[in-house]
Amino acid sequence: MKSLLIVAHGSRKMASNDEVRQLTDRIKNKINSEFDFITPAFLELAEPSIPDGLRQCIDAGSSDITVLPYFLSAGRHVTEDIPSEVQSVSQAHPDIKIHITPHIGGIEQLADLMIEQVTIQ
Amino acid sequence: MKSLLIVAHGSRKMASNDEVRQLTDRIKNKINSEFDFITPAFLELAEPSIPDGLRQCIDAGSSDITVLPYFLSAGRHVTEDIPSEVQSVSQAHPDIKIHITPHIGGIEQLADLMIEQVTIQ
Repeated sequence: MKSLLIVAHGSRKMASNDEVRQLTDRIKNKINSEFDFITPAFLELAEPSIPDGLRQCIDAGSSDITVLPYFLSAGRHVTEDIPSEVQSVSQAHPDIKIHITPHIGGIEQLADLMIEQVTIQ
Repeated sequence: MKSLLIVAHGSRKMASNDEVRQLTDRIKNKINSEFDFITPAFLELAEPSIPDGLRQCIDAGSSDITVLPYFLSAGRHVTEDIPSEVQSVSQAHPDIKIHITPHIGGIEQLADLMIEQVTIQ
């Protein structure tokens, strides 16, 4: 059973966190075969935390979890903080496979999406 | 003559600003007919500023500028700060058409890109 955890920074503004939750819901509605469980998680300032989100995936029966960092920049949050939070859960559950994908800003096709956005106006 | 200004937040980390500059270059290489001039700009902490970036576009001969906010969340920066910076230049140049597109997090197809990212591993 596979899970997808979409990890955002988290904000003091509830509306920003809700944006991430709504995007997660949109993805959930579009993708129904690949992942059995999809949930957002936040590095800080909102719930669930990354460890809590991962535990939700494990509690849902997942043995294979994909973590997608919803960040544009490969700053410390992406290169250190998220891997460290993931590792804390990973060490306690060595039987669970957890894979972190490139962050949004690191997706090669993002340039194409932006080009589409500015040329189809 | 049309210009594209890719507006990021800007960071104290030079590498993060360079990521935006590299993305701008990738877009520049992929899209050569639609825009005559493409440049990044930063809300704060890096150069050029949004007004300076817009003035570069105008100096390059543009009368039609598209501003693409490189932000994931529709926070104050996207809803207030960028429009306000754009307006300051717009008021001084009423003959120049400046259009702000939805931010990256507001692009409908971003969900599809994320799905592609997690399913083609």
